[in-house]
Amino acid sequence: MPASLPATCSCAVMNAFNQPLRVQQFPMPSDLKPGEMVVEVEMAGICGTDVHLHKGQLNVPLPLIMGHETTARVAALGAPDTTDWLGRPLRLGDRVSFTVGRPCGSCFYCRVHRLPSRCLNRKAYGVNVACAAAPHLLGGYGQYHFLHADTAVFKLADDLPSEAVVGAGCALVTAVHGFEKLNMRWAESVIIQGAGPVGLASLAIAKEAGGRPTIVIGGPRDRLERCKRFGADVTIDIDEVTDSTERRRRVLDATGGYGADVVVECVGLPQAVVEGWELCRDGARYLVLGHYGDAGPIPLNPHLITKKELTVLGTWGSEPQHWTIALEFLRTRRQAYPFHELITHRFRLDQVNEALAAVARWETGKAVIVPGR
Amino acid sequence: MPASLPATCSCAVMNAFNQPLRVQQFPMPSDLKPGEMVVEVEMAGICGTDVHLHKGQLNVPLPLIMGHETTARVAALGAPDTTDWLGRPLRLGDRVSFTVGRPCGSCFYCRVHRLPSRCLNRKAYGVNVACAAAPHLLGGYGQYHFLHADTAVFKLADDLPSEAVVGAGCALVTAVHGFEKLNMRWAESVIIQGAGPVGLASLAIAKEAGGRPTIVIGGPRDRLERCKRFGADVTIDIDEVTDSTERRRRVLDATGGYGADVVVECVGLPQAVVEGWELCRDGARYLVLGHYGDAGPIPLNPHLITKKELTVLGTWGSEPQHWTIALEFLRTRRQAYPFHELITHRFRLDQVNEALAAVARWETGKAVIVPGR
Amino acid sequence: MPASLPATCSCAVMNAFNQPLRVQQFPMPSDLKPGEMVVEVEMAGICGTDVHLHKGQLNVPLPLIMGHETTARVAALGAPDTTDWLGRPLRLGDRVSFTVGRPCGSCFYCRVHRLPSRCLNRKAYGVNVACAAAPHLLGGYGQYHFLHADTAVFKLADDLPSEAVVGAGCALVTAVHGFEKLNMRWAESVIIQGAGPVGLASLAIAKEAGGRPTIVIGGPRDRLERCKRFGADVTIDIDEVTDSTERRRRVLDATGGYGADVVVECVGLPQAVVEGWELCRDGARYLVLGHYGDAGPIPLNPHLITKKELTVLGTWGSEPQHWTIALEFLRTRRQAYPFHELITHRFRLDQVNEALAAVARWETGKAVIVPGR
Amino acid sequence: MPASLPATCSCAVMNAFNQPLRVQQFPMPSDLKPGEMVVEVEMAGICGTDVHLHKGQLNVPLPLIMGHETTARVAALGAPDTTDWLGRPLRLGDRVSFTVGRPCGSCFYCRVHRLPSRCLNRKAYGVNVACAAAPHLLGGYGQYHFLHADTAVFKLADDLPSEAVVGAGCALVTAVHGFEKLNMRWAESVIIQGAGPVGLASLAIAKEAGGRPTIVIGGPRDRLERCKRFGADVTIDIDEVTDSTERRRRVLDATGGYGADVVVECVGLPQAVVEGWELCRDGARYLVLGHYGDAGPIPLNPHLITKKELTVLGTWGSEPQHWTIALEFLRTRRQAYPFHELITHRFRLDQVNEALAAVARWETGKAVIVPGR
Repeated sequence: MPASLPATCSCAVMNAFNQPLRVQQFPMPSDLKPGEMVVEVEMAGICGTDVHLHKGQLNVPLPLIMGHETTARVAALGAPDTTDWLGRPLRLGDRVSFTVGRPCGSCFYCRVHRLPSRCLNRKAYGVNVACAAAPHLLGGYGQYHFLHADTAVFKLADDLPSEAVVGAGCALVTAVHGFEKLNMRWAESVIIQGAGPVGLASLAIAKEAGGRPTIVIGGPRDRLERCKRFGADVTIDIDEVTDSTERRRRVLDATGGYGADVVVECVGLPQAVVEGWELCRDGARYLVLGHYGDAGPIPLNPHLITKKELTVLGTWGSEPQHWTIALEFLRTRRQAYPFHELITHRFRLDQVNEALAAVARWETGKAVIVPGR
Repeated sequence: MPASLPATCSCAVMNAFNQPLRVQQFPMPSDLKPGEMVVEVEMAGICGTDVHLHKGQLNVPLPLIMGHETTARVAALGAPDTTDWLGRPLRLGDRVSFTVGRPCGSCFYCRVHRLPSRCLNRKAYGVNVACAAAPHLLGGYGQYHFLHADTAVFKLADDLPSEAVVGAGCALVTAVHGFEKLNMRWAESVIIQGAGPVGLASLAIAKEAGGRPTIVIGGPRDRLERCKRFGADVTIDIDEVTDSTERRRRVLDATGGYGADVVVECVGLPQAVVEGWELCRDGARYLVLGHYGDAGPIPLNPHLITKKELTVLGTWGSEPQHWTIALEFLRTRRQAYPFHELITHRFRLDQVNEALAAVARWETGKAVIVPGR
Repeated sequence: MPASLPATCSCAVMNAFNQPLRVQQFPMPSDLKPGEMVVEVEMAGICGTDVHLHKGQLNVPLPLIMGHETTARVAALGAPDTTDWLGRPLRLGDRVSFTVGRPCGSCFYCRVHRLPSRCLNRKAYGVNVACAAAPHLLGGYGQYHFLHADTAVFKLADDLPSEAVVGAGCALVTAVHGFEKLNMRWAESVIIQGAGPVGLASLAIAKEAGGRPTIVIGGPRDRLERCKRFGADVTIDIDEVTDSTERRRRVLDATGGYGADVVVECVGLPQAVVEGWELCRDGARYLVLGHYGDAGPIPLNPHLITKKELTVLGTWGSEPQHWTIALEFLRTRRQAYPFHELITHRFRLDQVNEALAAVARWETGKAVIVPGR
Repeated sequence: MPASLPATCSCAVMNAFNQPLRVQQFPMPSDLKPGEMVVEVEMAGICGTDVHLHKGQLNVPLPLIMGHETTARVAALGAPDTTDWLGRPLRLGDRVSFTVGRPCGSCFYCRVHRLPSRCLNRKAYGVNVACAAAPHLLGGYGQYHFLHADTAVFKLADDLPSEAVVGAGCALVTAVHGFEKLNMRWAESVIIQGAGPVGLASLAIAKEAGGRPTIVIGGPRDRLERCKRFGADVTIDIDEVTDSTERRRRVLDATGGYGADVVVECVGLPQAVVEGWELCRDGARYLVLGHYGDAGPIPLNPHLITKKELTVLGTWGSEPQHWTIALEFLRTRRQAYPFHELITHRFRLDQVNEALAAVARWETGKAVIVPGR
């Protein structure tokens, strides 16, 4: 471990829901075991989910260092021959990102059904691991981050800017996973419900995978503008076209009168599902991708599933191999899908409460914490 | 056309909903074109759907000759070299059955998406073709039945009793279609919700396809007894276990604590879907097979689809190739799945109203009209 | 039928293999039945297959009017309300193209396995229907072409040039079919073996479907240049890199050292399969797309299929729905994939032998007959 | 570790190919780490592969303790709270079996493609781990067996006899894996080429999964008799029907004249593939399951893959989840598929050379070593 590592580290801690986060000092982890490492946070994305966490809407432990979309530089390695998830050697100073979810690898879902996203013992940095006990540094909102040996770390290529990685954030890998199950085929028509981060990521994949036309239904206007820059063939502004019947009419116009082959829900509100099933052609596939929060039941008609012969699919979170796809996509296709341009606001660590408030007020594109600022 | 064909034919006609059917005389079709035929009805199943039709719960044209589960004998052929759907020559006297649905073959769904079950112009004998105009004889409740040239007719093997064909009825081909999309794999655990005809057919397929365990939730008791005879590993009687939490507990007991790999809804009540999603393990597939009637929306939580990574599927009706599978299954596996034993009541044509009433009161296993009686 | 139709029609007829074709006169079809039509040929592509037909390498009937890649204008309709395959009304003068293969719709493969490409009674204009008997005009090498009622005719959009349709030719729909079975997913690495028409079409689809990288192995140089214009990330010139070990080394370099996710054979020589299996990563899919001619067996090692856990797939011909995808692709993506630029040579009908010779000598990009010239 | 464990352990060691194995003494492993265990071998199957290993036909390290089909009892645990692969607590004396392959979990195939059967660093007890260094006891031909912490151990249910587990051997899990990729559907016709262990296991799965008819082509006669007891609908004895044309004729007879939906190669000779492709109907799937040894290339015609639209698949080895399926199948379906009856010969450890010779001479059904005898 290099002599230059400080003895302590500042992190923004959520000690109570709905209360300001406080920047606190933690001792630096020592005695790293092989595979473990400490990374110096370069940039920590503020995900909309963090706002929900802060409001206490999800059941997470406290005190918590949030931050689950992070790029960083390797600051200390538990063993000199440490490699990243793809087997590439890691050296001090290397720029990396990493999956925050760590499945146990040994439960029923990890083993029998190869479904680590549904691991019964899943740990997620910045989300469900409290920072009270060592090694403390378990979230992105801090100067340094500790990584367990089973973390999937990815060395970032020189031509892949950190802004792209954090700009795409966890939304992109979530969408990569969803589209894997959706099994989208080229030349299919695709509707994306929602123009937020997951919607934009889904649009990017739908375009890249040869979707035609790609239709985004959402808002507000500037988000739809961004969707157009990412290649959306049709956008429907829900602030403008407030009547769902009229929205459906426009979808039918754009899909030869029958509805789309594929509809991807990226909204998170149950009503979107009601509207979404109506936008499906018979035999279509519908992906429920935005329902991470439990917004409760909504009146839905299962008769439609039978009558329209629908396939309704869900996926949860992501796995490391979705990261390999996402990172290579970001690197090679930056021109067409400029995720790096999404970052509109940069905050210092001590501005974290200001940052969360700005995100909560939807004032930002993507906001990030830059602890080293 | 043989000289022995009578000049007229008796059929039971529904002239108004909720009114008694009336046996009326129709002229025999003449001048059959190549491919067309007249068959003498041997046995016409009374499907639960017929009760719904009679109550006016589906939007069907009147006057109507109902009956869409029929075995018959070839009485007249439009051309001597007529073959069945599989290319086997048909002769006068041959025993046959046939698909009642006739897709147009040229609409968007028939052509572009190879989805004839969603044909935009589908005609179905006994369901949506009125009998006012020639050739009149377009349903099974009659002495004779006219078959258009595009009907998928199947010659019945000598070792396949008509009772098996009508006993299995349209439920079996519906289930064959559903399981095709469900893509059930051997050694998967399967729950069947519902012990009626579709549930029993689904159970038979689940067993035959190597499902283990197979669990049926339904009632009443005698239907569950029949499910046991068909091989159900576990049955849960909803009249006995009235609490859905307790039913779920039993399912978890039988599936290692996680729920089933596959759940098939064969009930038709929206509430079954709510319960069914709770019986799925994470990553399971759920087939909505029983929702032919529109029972309206029900509060459903799409969050479950995301969180449990479900796949929810629907299919509608059946296609002729599902018949080839069903008929061969009935022929070769009669021993294990005695569908022919299901017929409990036989009625003459003039007893049709009595027959419908008995079915409506759930007094029967399978009831059939035997016009020649 | 408009008065302007001539009484006779000139067509280029192959009366014997390896002998010059002769332009002959045929009577115009009369008494068109509903659904039938006569179209005036605008442009007839000369497929490499036509050269093989001319050499007698395939077992086809004589006399034959070749030509199976045709655009034309509606000249006469059997009924005024004729529509195209997608249900769009057809009028005299409309520009159309059409599938040459006409499956019977009633054989074992058409019916039971929904595999019309393997129809047991398939007829193909320009390939296996002789012109001796009326309606004679059954191939593209003529002024007019007769179309049976069961032909899948497609009205061409105004913004879809005939050059694109004929330039892409039967190669594109063949590739659309192959990729449907291949089920290519975005972000997969793809190798195309062969830079001819099928290779180029496969490359276009692989790019459009998000393949990365796309690697073409073939020649000669100008074809590879065209592949680069169509977006190939890597090209390997077999005239330059004559050693298959070195070719494999380059493929491994471009695919992280393991081989490609997907390899598509578009060569037609059995040796390509030997090389292709070596270019697959373990678990890859290999599509045999170019083996329309029977070039006989080649030493192949099935142990590789087990050891590398390969999936080796084949498809044959195409179906009308592949045309709907191909035509819309050509229309909307002309900019990225300029198939219309492929046509390098135009011949009059009386130059047909010159045209075939030029194609046989590989002197042309795409050569076409323009009967109206 | 219980006091009762002896200080040393006898194992049969292969020190050179084609030379007699020698029973040698090894020190018992000590200082077991958490997860590690020592098991007392109850029964070790002699796989046909062992004969090949003994002949030096596969490239394995020496000295080697062979034996990769083992049941045993837990004799010592590295930690008291050790569980089996399914999370069930393990106690001293528990009867277990285990997967011999141990993938690394961190290579390209393990990680990126979730293909542990193609792990680049796979270790397999009894096959590719020499016994020279501690912990020595790394194969089934010995009194005790050491198990690394990453071994997938399965506690055997009381109603699952060891004879069934060893009788089915590695052939069954190999077939479970193959059929997973094959994605066999109920009511498909299935041909099994080969009546050896893999063929018999494939037949059992094909029957259980609802295959109809199931056809086995192989020999000798007693093996085919056993196939009939396992439910084969048709058997074709290659010693009797020596002409492949006649064999094909019989297959066509049994499959309506077109060939089978699914053909599974369980022979290991390349010629079987040539014959197998001819037994496929168009559009069929062909699984190359028996080609573990490299028997070299054979003249094969890839044109058939295109023309018949075949899907040719391979799988290699198995994964632990295939064991969960296999063990439950053996437990619940013993009646129908009596794998436990296959064991015909039992040998003491000091009879190991006699045992290998008997297997090499094909004199045995399944032969096992019972070290405790």
